[in-house]
Amino acid sequence: MAPVLILMGSQSDWPVMQNAAQMLKDLGVEWRAEVVSAHRTPDLLKTTMEQAERDGVPVVIAGAGGAAHLPGMLAAFTAIPVLGVPVPSKQLKGLDSLLSIVQMPKGVAVGTLAVGAAGAANAGLLAAQIIGSFDADVRQRVHAFREQQRDKVMSGPKLELPES
Amino acid sequence: MAPVLILMGSQSDWPVMQNAAQMLKDLGVEWRAEVVSAHRTPDLLKTTMEQAERDGVPVVIAGAGGAAHLPGMLAAFTAIPVLGVPVPSKQLKGLDSLLSIVQMPKGVAVGTLAVGAAGAANAGLLAAQIIGSFDADVRQRVHAFREQQRDKVMSGPKLELPES
Amino acid sequence: MAPVLILMGSQSDWPVMQNAAQMLKDLGVEWRAEVVSAHRTPDLLKTTMEQAERDGVPVVIAGAGGAAHLPGMLAAFTAIPVLGVPVPSKQLKGLDSLLSIVQMPKGVAVGTLAVGAAGAANAGLLAAQIIGSFDADVRQRVHAFREQQRDKVMSGPKLELPES
Amino acid sequence: MAPVLILMGSQSDWPVMQNAAQMLKDLGVEWRAEVVSAHRTPDLLKTTMEQAERDGVPVVIAGAGGAAHLPGMLAAFTAIPVLGVPVPSKQLKGLDSLLSIVQMPKGVAVGTLAVGAAGAANAGLLAAQIIGSFDADVRQRVHAFREQQRDKVMSGPKLELPES
Amino acid sequence: MAPVLILMGSQSDWPVMQNAAQMLKDLGVEWRAEVVSAHRTPDLLKTTMEQAERDGVPVVIAGAGGAAHLPGMLAAFTAIPVLGVPVPSKQLKGLDSLLSIVQMPKGVAVGTLAVGAAGAANAGLLAAQIIGSFDADVRQRVHAFREQQRDKVMSGPKLELPES
Amino acid sequence: MAPVLILMGSQSDWPVMQNAAQMLKDLGVEWRAEVVSAHRTPDLLKTTMEQAERDGVPVVIAGAGGAAHLPGMLAAFTAIPVLGVPVPSKQLKGLDSLLSIVQMPKGVAVGTLAVGAAGAANAGLLAAQIIGSFDADVRQRVHAFREQQRDKVMSGPKLELPES
Amino acid sequence: MAPVLILMGSQSDWPVMQNAAQMLKDLGVEWRAEVVSAHRTPDLLKTTMEQAERDGVPVVIAGAGGAAHLPGMLAAFTAIPVLGVPVPSKQLKGLDSLLSIVQMPKGVAVGTLAVGAAGAANAGLLAAQIIGSFDADVRQRVHAFREQQRDKVMSGPKLELPES
Amino acid sequence: MAPVLILMGSQSDWPVMQNAAQMLKDLGVEWRAEVVSAHRTPDLLKTTMEQAERDGVPVVIAGAGGAAHLPGMLAAFTAIPVLGVPVPSKQLKGLDSLLSIVQMPKGVAVGTLAVGAAGAANAGLLAAQIIGSFDADVRQRVHAFREQQRDKVMSGPKLELPES
Repeated sequence: MAPVLILMGSQSDWPVMQNAAQMLKDLGVEWRAEVVSAHRTPDLLKTTMEQAERDGVPVVIAGAGGAAHLPGMLAAFTAIPVLGVPVPSKQLKGLDSLLSIVQMPKGVAVGTLAVGAAGAANAGLLAAQIIGSFDADVRQRVHAFREQQRDKVMSGPKLELPES
Repeated sequence: MAPVLILMGSQSDWPVMQNAAQMLKDLGVEWRAEVVSAHRTPDLLKTTMEQAERDGVPVVIAGAGGAAHLPGMLAAFTAIPVLGVPVPSKQLKGLDSLLSIVQMPKGVAVGTLAVGAAGAANAGLLAAQIIGSFDADVRQRVHAFREQQRDKVMSGPKLELPES
Repeated sequence: MAPVLILMGSQSDWPVMQNAAQMLKDLGVEWRAEVVSAHRTPDLLKTTMEQAERDGVPVVIAGAGGAAHLPGMLAAFTAIPVLGVPVPSKQLKGLDSLLSIVQMPKGVAVGTLAVGAAGAANAGLLAAQIIGSFDADVRQRVHAFREQQRDKVMSGPKLELPES
Repeated sequence: MAPVLILMGSQSDWPVMQNAAQMLKDLGVEWRAEVVSAHRTPDLLKTTMEQAERDGVPVVIAGAGGAAHLPGMLAAFTAIPVLGVPVPSKQLKGLDSLLSIVQMPKGVAVGTLAVGAAGAANAGLLAAQIIGSFDADVRQRVHAFREQQRDKVMSGPKLELPES
Repeated sequence: MAPVLILMGSQSDWPVMQNAAQMLKDLGVEWRAEVVSAHRTPDLLKTTMEQAERDGVPVVIAGAGGAAHLPGMLAAFTAIPVLGVPVPSKQLKGLDSLLSIVQMPKGVAVGTLAVGAAGAANAGLLAAQIIGSFDADVRQRVHAFREQQRDKVMSGPKLELPES
Repeated sequence: MAPVLILMGSQSDWPVMQNAAQMLKDLGVEWRAEVVSAHRTPDLLKTTMEQAERDGVPVVIAGAGGAAHLPGMLAAFTAIPVLGVPVPSKQLKGLDSLLSIVQMPKGVAVGTLAVGAAGAANAGLLAAQIIGSFDADVRQRVHAFREQQRDKVMSGPKLELPES
Repeated sequence: MAPVLILMGSQSDWPVMQNAAQMLKDLGVEWRAEVVSAHRTPDLLKTTMEQAERDGVPVVIAGAGGAAHLPGMLAAFTAIPVLGVPVPSKQLKGLDSLLSIVQMPKGVAVGTLAVGAAGAANAGLLAAQIIGSFDADVRQRVHAFREQQRDKVMSGPKLELPES
Repeated sequence: MAPVLILMGSQSDWPVMQNAAQMLKDLGVEWRAEVVSAHRTPDLLKTTMEQAERDGVPVVIAGAGGAAHLPGMLAAFTAIPVLGVPVPSKQLKGLDSLLSIVQMPKGVAVGTLAVGAAGAANAGLLAAQIIGSFDADVRQRVHAFREQQRDKVMSGPKLELPES
């Protein structure tokens, strides 16, 4: 199977989007990341998606901010499932990014995650879960990740008020 | 493969959520729909997801409105990918539903679609795309659906001003 | 000069967008309207804009709703000025449409008008003003329109309380 | 009577939630705090609430951020009154937390306080008021706290413009 | 024990607020409802709360819309726990009512419920839960209500697509 | 004439509210500032307003943040015109303060200014304008202030790009 | 004294703005209403305000919707106090009108009332209160209006559940 | 042809607005920048626009923050196309600026760009595109700018996870 493809509208989105890559790496899933801008390199939208279908990419993760058109436009050019990550914008804090990604019209779908780094990490997790629906090893690693999370919560320190 | 599982918080969500079922049917994917309320039947969350994993359900679609906890709580109990549909709320028009579903913390993911019927239809489409990543027949039907959409746009009537 | 090109994401946007056509007609500017969907006919984005540049189209007006990507994607494929009209969405009332159109990143611009019919009419007006910067006849008709508006305000009926 | 139970979705919520503990301590009400994550330790929701009912816990205070499901899910598993505190989220500043907690559907209730530290302190105060409805000593201490607040306002320094 | 006191800013709030009364009645808890306007009858705020304390009222439920000051001002005059219900406003749909009620500063608390009729019903339910913390009969009736809700969800009709 | 009365919910509002005092001072209008908390000193609302009417206070300026009830509650107790200043809140940036102050129901009015320091300064200015409607000297000073503002704009430095 | 001047951006605002006129009439204050559009009759802004100052108009009430510039622009041309009424807009429900009116920069002030008919009525009331600061008869009528309001609240019918 | 005119409400808007000047300079288009305040120098609105029409200014760019009336008021006084830039406000982050500029009523149009520096740069770009519709040299420079942008995206560094 080809690596999960992580695309973003700008080099400056990588500090957010690398959380998707890290999660995939932690779950033993291959990934590849590239900058493709819906607005500055629109010709790449179609060619990148056509190549991804030929390569057998199972999931595309796309992050963008502001009037975030990348996830929806990639989805328009492919039948591969596309997950969208709203990158926080400077003034409106990612509310614009979120609505631009999630409010897709009927007929072209983007599975949208939370605004920012947590959403990017969860895009990696959801991609692994998608692969895990057809790959028992990945599914198993998702279950193991869940158990680690649970154990980490349950072994935290006692909650006490600071000495006054 | 087991049918896609469509869950919703209330019988009253079915007029919205049946758009997911219809889309899956149109794309030749089996589905099954049930009411499971995060708040009124919380014990069903875990048992339903455990049964779904045993059955080999490839994708879960969950819709809820207001403080919409169903998609996130189902995701907490399973490694199956969960898609969330914000059902419009009476006063706040689904902005509450959307934020309650999409803003999941790192570690438990929900792929969120648009508010309302378009989002439900797209949840069905995205579920088919996920299955299509591993099933060439379904992938092919998604491509055919895309072509139908394109042809429908291109064969529309001429746009003219009404006679004044 | 070629007609102003009015594009919209769906046939269902025409009741809003025809206000742009009507305003252009009232100001004596030629127009042509077509449906081009960013998501359902993405291949048309580039070919339509390339043809428009060849034809000498002076302004493109584009309307779309929800995750409204049409105006920004057209702007990505052309140097013709693009004006965007946020079409009201069912649940979020066009706030999503507005942010998806106006919050473009640096380097690709869309001149955005108000949500709904008033915004569409004003897109027609602004297109005529743009042409009027280089065409004295059109400029003159814009001035005449302004005077009509002023006279209409100033000749309104007296404001009185209803008889109780 | 058992201590008031303060639960939160993550260790990182304690700086906000300890304001509830401090207020309870100031009003002479016993408390106990633990991390229970709706998403990472969902099995604990039911067992924690069943134990709380057996122990005679009079009020549960629950804080969480983002798609904040903890207060509502605890309320789904118990008849003990649950008070919810929206913990501020990084990007959307707690508006998501607030709507996810307060907009509960009919049949499962969460009494919601303000976003952040003031809301946490007030959750402690409201818990004490609830106990005070049945415990004259606690009621008396709430009255005394009110008087302290009043006196503090009334003995503040004179308000003057800074020397220019 | 005195009846739960249901107060509202205007006669016109009763269609929303009667859902609190109905829920209390269904759970076997006495209630009494009155109109007290924070703005039009401000002198009643203190006298009503002082009488309520003398009567032994265990919980006050207060509903108001717009710049909804009633719940917070009642809370300022009493140590009885106050639950607030945001009544939907005509233009802003109750977002103003919600923020005006829930965002109380540290030191005076209002336990806030959802906007509208569901929130009013849940205010009745939460009042019963509060009483149930000290009255085993009421606690038992809350548990029975929960079971009825669960059974109603589980006995719903099968979800099917309409015949096409 | 008695000084304009500037009231605020908390000592911590003074850095914002002193902008009202400074503007009044600049316009030669007497002022007096005090802390009166709607929630912590509710008994002062009525007595402070009764004393203000006896003193002949021409305008009351009131600032508060969050669920900002002070301006509306003062207005409920007096026929003196009340101007409200939304003090910025920590998380929601004063949107809550603004809606809590401006959305008053029919029958009790608050003239609301912008969120924060600019709004406080303008409350001072509007108070002077109100007095100026009946006091030609103050009116004259408002006109002079306007001219100063105009001159300051018109004598600004030339706008140039920084040397690159 | 000259009548209070009620201005609005469009004839279509009169159904909202006549609530200001009615309130003034009820309080025995003279008024006059006219349409002045900031955008369509910008030359009238200055001349209308200069005439109003010459006439001795004590207060100007201005209503507008959407990008509501009328109140602020009138305020820019006069030292008479200006009260602004946000007229509801079709899509954004008056949130745009409210922010366009209330968020004035330091140096030009508009006292803003609630969105819609209640805000218009309160503009009339606040204008009367302003006049009442200098006219004991009007002040007295405001007090009488307050008492009528109070009596109306206190004589309302008993609140009962509908027969089931 | 006369230079593009860049106007702003305050000297303090220049750090944002100079991005428009820089973009115009980069595209070889002449510009001139001045401070004109809608509220503090309202008399300049008309005279500045009349002079601009006489000079043959092809496009006006106007930036303002908060209740941002400058772009719309300039548009009211001219037939030159006006582009509006919402300058971020301190508390509401430019949402107020955006709505005050974009939501113009039918009959007076402002082509609105994104909030902040990116919007200012894009105003410069769109002005150049407008001129480019009638000036082949400018059109050519816009195309070259697009190609530079594309090349910059495509020659970025490889995206890799940081060494852990």
